[in-house]
Amino acid sequence: MTSASTVAVTGDVSVAYPDLITFTTGVFEHHGVPAARARTAAEALCHGDLTGVRSHGLANLTRLYLPLFAEGRADPVAEPRVLADRGASVLLDGGRALGLWLAAEAVDLAVERAGEHGVGLVSIRNATHFGCAGFHAARAVPHDMVGLLAGNCGRQRIARPPGARPALLGTNPLSIAAPAGPHHPFVLDMSTTVVPTGRIRAAERAGETIPVGWLEDTDGRPVTDPGALDRREAYVQWLGGSPETGAFKGYGLALLVEVLAAAVAGAGLGPDPEAFGGDGGPTGRDDDIGVFALAVAPGELRGADGFRQTVTALFGALLDSPAARPGQAVRYPGWYEAERAGEYQRDGVPLSAALAAELRAVAAQTGVAFPAVKR
Amino acid sequence: MTSASTVAVTGDVSVAYPDLITFTTGVFEHHGVPAARARTAAEALCHGDLTGVRSHGLANLTRLYLPLFAEGRADPVAEPRVLADRGASVLLDGGRALGLWLAAEAVDLAVERAGEHGVGLVSIRNATHFGCAGFHAARAVPHDMVGLLAGNCGRQRIARPPGARPALLGTNPLSIAAPAGPHHPFVLDMSTTVVPTGRIRAAERAGETIPVGWLEDTDGRPVTDPGALDRREAYVQWLGGSPETGAFKGYGLALLVEVLAAAVAGAGLGPDPEAFGGDGGPTGRDDDIGVFALAVAPGELRGADGFRQTVTALFGALLDSPAARPGQAVRYPGWYEAERAGEYQRDGVPLSAALAAELRAVAAQTGVAFPAVKR
Repeated sequence: MTSASTVAVTGDVSVAYPDLITFTTGVFEHHGVPAARARTAAEALCHGDLTGVRSHGLANLTRLYLPLFAEGRADPVAEPRVLADRGASVLLDGGRALGLWLAAEAVDLAVERAGEHGVGLVSIRNATHFGCAGFHAARAVPHDMVGLLAGNCGRQRIARPPGARPALLGTNPLSIAAPAGPHHPFVLDMSTTVVPTGRIRAAERAGETIPVGWLEDTDGRPVTDPGALDRREAYVQWLGGSPETGAFKGYGLALLVEVLAAAVAGAGLGPDPEAFGGDGGPTGRDDDIGVFALAVAPGELRGADGFRQTVTALFGALLDSPAARPGQAVRYPGWYEAERAGEYQRDGVPLSAALAAELRAVAAQTGVAFPAVKR
Repeated sequence: MTSASTVAVTGDVSVAYPDLITFTTGVFEHHGVPAARARTAAEALCHGDLTGVRSHGLANLTRLYLPLFAEGRADPVAEPRVLADRGASVLLDGGRALGLWLAAEAVDLAVERAGEHGVGLVSIRNATHFGCAGFHAARAVPHDMVGLLAGNCGRQRIARPPGARPALLGTNPLSIAAPAGPHHPFVLDMSTTVVPTGRIRAAERAGETIPVGWLEDTDGRPVTDPGALDRREAYVQWLGGSPETGAFKGYGLALLVEVLAAAVAGAGLGPDPEAFGGDGGPTGRDDDIGVFALAVAPGELRGADGFRQTVTALFGALLDSPAARPGQAVRYPGWYEAERAGEYQRDGVPLSAALAAELRAVAAQTGVAFPAVKR
């Protein structure tokens, strides 16, 4: 729903979506990921580029996912282990499997259990980075269910509790997806900070400054240089901005995710005593991530037809709402992303020249052919 | 965690907490609410005053709850009807029972089901206003469980989707509570707007202006006169403020609540075509509220001991965190409220002179004795 770093710009190349999936699948297979798993992971990763959320797309392949394999922090063939199964709820040890695949499996399993019990919960410890949370939550939608996915950031510490010197929490993403009848599904995919770190890094790569309100320095002064994040000189601010306008809500939502995703599962935590060492700057690794996947099946409770009518009316009323200003349209989270995905599936997925160069280098290293460029 | 309208001021009187519960229970009983139910409702309502969240306490007795009875919008003896029971999940028709009691029952039932299935979901249509969401969510805590409670505002329309002329959504409260071992429980209780309307009305009663960022007029300009809300000249802003700093997240969280609480249950919706009539100002009634109550039982999954150790470490690390400025303490949502409740249970609950006068008038009308005033 926001505009920064989400649109095709001059210098972009364009690649057919199926070709991009084939390439990315091949790269994951080259790193030992089994074929079906590699394909799901590729769809999850390319979802960022397909929907225009470039901060969570293939830009992270060389920055985030390939290093996970290189450093042994992800296990390409790990089979998740069932630690407890209560029917409606399951606890898994993810075994450091690729989060891009594991989170999709979690939602699929939650959907299966919700089909029997009306609600299904899958809790995972020892997971790895799962990319766009909304991609996974939305897997509930074709089943006429509501999907929720949240993950903490393992032991990664980026954001400071209000009043604290050290960073103790991650950006802790939270997502929900619901069908909307004939309209595009509702997909909210948000960090509990003002923006995810990927948006800040995308601004840095583009050589742009960032708006006031995204980063603050140690003393709480605004920082507009995106590079300050990775130089550990600045902290991401909470959703809500100042305490007067809701910072405690953003912080509270981060703790909601920390509890549901990590404490319930027994995964790594941001806030642990070790966090107080060093200079108090952002630190910690996003290993041993906790995942919370929930599916709710209205069809098992009020019936699928009534639910479909309700969500059709709900999201239809939003789309039909009179606009505050002429030419401005009222939309909801997930709408623009779905429009863009339709366009890019038809016309090709734009990649920046810099990203295309990175992926060509990966192609050369792995022997996986880089797709033909459409323009 | 915020300070406005939460502290005792000159002119306050003080009443012993048990006496306040006895009085409020008596008033509900006078209106036909059965005794045990009246007591739960009294505890829920007085929770606002006990924890210093005055906007959601007894100030709402004459404004909100007694009119519900007078206008036949709440049924004091309604028995919720089970529409579907899938074991881990239950759908109820609340029959317009008092939400202050019904929401507590919902969490208790979710806890019961979570004890068998690891997760328990109770979905309710046709509910009424439930007061502090956090009071209800926190009923899961003594069971070593995590409780979530969310409610939409029925057909009440206060907040405008970004870019829309009419208001289409309520403030849609969302809460989570979790045990924190020996520390005060974590209780996040938030509206998905910058503030709940009760905070704005409390400022109006106190003759105060409100900060920029809480209300905006039809054209999006800031409004600092709290009276503009009920004159239908202003709209509450979303958590996140502007689109650049996350307004779509606040809006998206309101839709999350609208889907989970109302669409899943089949309750009244803010966004319906009827909303487009009239002047587009805030309108609609908070009748046929939808409620989403979820309990998660880590004891059924990873085991209660491990969970207790984790939350002890998690919330202990926050409390022990070095402060950014000397003398400033790091806390989490629910901490200050619990401290205040302890103090007020010991020393008496402060009530403003104006509220005490209102309650004395209720005492005179109902014949329920008003408690002795301690100071």
